[in-house]
Amino acid sequence: MKRPVRQIVEARKGNLTAEMRAVARLEKVAPGFVLESVAAGTVVIPRNRRHRHAGPCGIGTGLRTKVNANLGTSADVAGLGLEVAKLRAAVGAGADAVMDLSTGGDLAAIRRKILAASRLPVGTVPVYQAAVGRARAGGGIASMTEDEIFEAIEEHAADGVDFVTVHCGVTRAALDRMRRQGRLMDVVSRGGAFLVTWMVANDRENPLWRDFGRLVEIAARYDLALSLGDAMRPGCIADANDRAQFQELIALGELRAHAHREGVQTMIEGPGHVPIHQIEENVKLEKALCGGAPFYVLGPLVTDVAPGYDHIACAIGGAVAGAAGADFLCYVTPAEHLGLPGPADVREGVIAARIAAHAADLAKGVPGAAQWDLEMARRRKRRDWDGMLRLALDPARARLIRKASPPRLADVCTMCGEFCAIKTVEKYLGKG
Amino acid sequence: MKRPVRQIVEARKGNLTAEMRAVARLEKVAPGFVLESVAAGTVVIPRNRRHRHAGPCGIGTGLRTKVNANLGTSADVAGLGLEVAKLRAAVGAGADAVMDLSTGGDLAAIRRKILAASRLPVGTVPVYQAAVGRARAGGGIASMTEDEIFEAIEEHAADGVDFVTVHCGVTRAALDRMRRQGRLMDVVSRGGAFLVTWMVANDRENPLWRDFGRLVEIAARYDLALSLGDAMRPGCIADANDRAQFQELIALGELRAHAHREGVQTMIEGPGHVPIHQIEENVKLEKALCGGAPFYVLGPLVTDVAPGYDHIACAIGGAVAGAAGADFLCYVTPAEHLGLPGPADVREGVIAARIAAHAADLAKGVPGAAQWDLEMARRRKRRDWDGMLRLALDPARARLIRKASPPRLADVCTMCGEFCAIKTVEKYLGKG
Repeated sequence: MKRPVRQIVEARKGNLTAEMRAVARLEKVAPGFVLESVAAGTVVIPRNRRHRHAGPCGIGTGLRTKVNANLGTSADVAGLGLEVAKLRAAVGAGADAVMDLSTGGDLAAIRRKILAASRLPVGTVPVYQAAVGRARAGGGIASMTEDEIFEAIEEHAADGVDFVTVHCGVTRAALDRMRRQGRLMDVVSRGGAFLVTWMVANDRENPLWRDFGRLVEIAARYDLALSLGDAMRPGCIADANDRAQFQELIALGELRAHAHREGVQTMIEGPGHVPIHQIEENVKLEKALCGGAPFYVLGPLVTDVAPGYDHIACAIGGAVAGAAGADFLCYVTPAEHLGLPGPADVREGVIAARIAAHAADLAKGVPGAAQWDLEMARRRKRRDWDGMLRLALDPARARLIRKASPPRLADVCTMCGEFCAIKTVEKYLGKG
Repeated sequence: MKRPVRQIVEARKGNLTAEMRAVARLEKVAPGFVLESVAAGTVVIPRNRRHRHAGPCGIGTGLRTKVNANLGTSADVAGLGLEVAKLRAAVGAGADAVMDLSTGGDLAAIRRKILAASRLPVGTVPVYQAAVGRARAGGGIASMTEDEIFEAIEEHAADGVDFVTVHCGVTRAALDRMRRQGRLMDVVSRGGAFLVTWMVANDRENPLWRDFGRLVEIAARYDLALSLGDAMRPGCIADANDRAQFQELIALGELRAHAHREGVQTMIEGPGHVPIHQIEENVKLEKALCGGAPFYVLGPLVTDVAPGYDHIACAIGGAVAGAAGADFLCYVTPAEHLGLPGPADVREGVIAARIAAHAADLAKGVPGAAQWDLEMARRRKRRDWDGMLRLALDPARARLIRKASPPRLADVCTMCGEFCAIKTVEKYLGKG
């Protein structure tokens, strides 16, 4: 097997890799900034060279906030064609990465199909495979062996997966803290739930914690990026920012230091369901406890009461988290809490998360972000409709809405018609 | 004419009005708190008793964040039936108030129809009537007389309108500041644009500023609530938080003090297009400069680039503004910047704004807000689907999505099927 290019190791030597150069070019930042950030672990480039045709994507401080779209089958809905359609929808809507979270059908076949079809980085949660395999064999999740968990991770890496979620921080200590806390929703992370089940049933420590060195060795072998999962993410507003969550985050900070030392790229995953006023402290604490590692948040959802519109609850939380420093937003679709999303849900979810990410980039002052809005505003002032529609985050949707309501005068819209405010004052205040 | 009950005047005498009692009951707060807040002007109850069948709605600090839906025709799309359908959509989606912003068709007939059909408080922008009337007569907006502006306001009050937007703060000083600032989008407020046009063409001061006392007298006569409009609201991210905007806000603060002294209920309107990191200072400044008067924000939209999804850009900004203390969120629909919304757009817009308002209420700690999420979480933990769907912010949509993806096991959903995290850990961690 060809040895992989290890981004951190090269960065430490001062070697700019092709991936670092590409990220600098895409983000319009200095290559030296990318190199230093990769060396420091504040930027991660999830890039398994076995995923040959994937483009590089930089995630972390100083770069554009990225959006991930979760794909994947379930025990109830498992169609390979459907997953490819969802991947296309995610790419078409402008996602930066996808995760295959399949738990139904032929898991290996689906994963390989998505890897083959995706030019975006692909992430997975390998423990699903170990757990689902045992459950199907009739033994129950608790019967999976420690080796099976690590073997699943290595199999995914060998397939070309670019990053894996590994719930290494859900230790017995975190579980004890959760019990003493008296949580309402307990564990809502699926991978976390599998590991907790295993731990409690077997009365053993989490092997991904106890034997973290083994995981780091596998990751180093493929330059597989680790995304340290938050099994303790709050599943409802009432559980937000509790002791169990931060017990886990402290453990993740230790593990991230270990992985970084060994030259393994690492991100940290975050909540979850969090009210607006508790989001910023989550982000700041992650950065403080985890050495500035990229923060990958699921939402956060700012309320529990909006099933059917959780992409909007997520856009609010993602924008606030991003503005506070979160680097990578996992989308949520309108189907969240109700069912497996289809391609149309995927599209809606990605667009909503991209709005949040861009709003965050304006707040962060990410290079080039404000320019987009400025260009749009200039065209709006000139009532240059072609320009506006072309610049829209989703040009197809914007065109559709405009077309459905054609104005009498071509240079305005039907909201105001001839009484367009911009047009009205232009005569007196000039064209600007 | 029967003298109206004037909420501030009664509150100052220590008299609890029927409206104050109703607000206290609806909001589950002490009647004394409502009385003191109305007396202080930190809560406004827009309630014109000539709008006989309207229910009271309290807006301000310590109460639930409210949502307004803009209705109204334009020169291009003017159907009375359509406006009634939009009103029904707004009420059905849970709006707290509506505004009739018509500029097309028979303005008086539409306004009276909406007043007759609406149990929610109704607001208007009377200057539209004066300006549109003159424009139709061929004289141009600049030919309207000062009397016509005040007469339009009185006509609306006499019809039963509960609150009016009046752009009193767009003075010559504010206009000068805007010119010196070198704004990109100039004036994007339609009412503001009409007044600016008039001021520049006639080389005169804004009559609503110069003759504010006349306006206050009219308002006192009907207990018409004033919503002091922000003609200088930024129309793009590049114009946010500029000197013109705050010049106007300072003037609005002075006017609000005048109106409050005279016992006239007053709200302040706010932006507009504002990036996330500049929203909080807008809200805090409004409260500081305007004596804690209720802040009524249009959006804010946190980016310019999302036409087709401005309800989401607005939900992000509205939630952040609300969390910082804004009291009243004006919705924006998916049609914003593209055309006049239809009933489906109205529905989407109201729901998105309600999510923002509720997310803000969780952050503000509004009495009862967290209880809703708690009840939802309890049902989610028990996998009580009927309960969850009933408690959803939009039960019909949630039911539709769940129905479209029926799970094999009735107690889970198709996202995880048998591998539901909640169900998986329940066996080991208890039912909570």
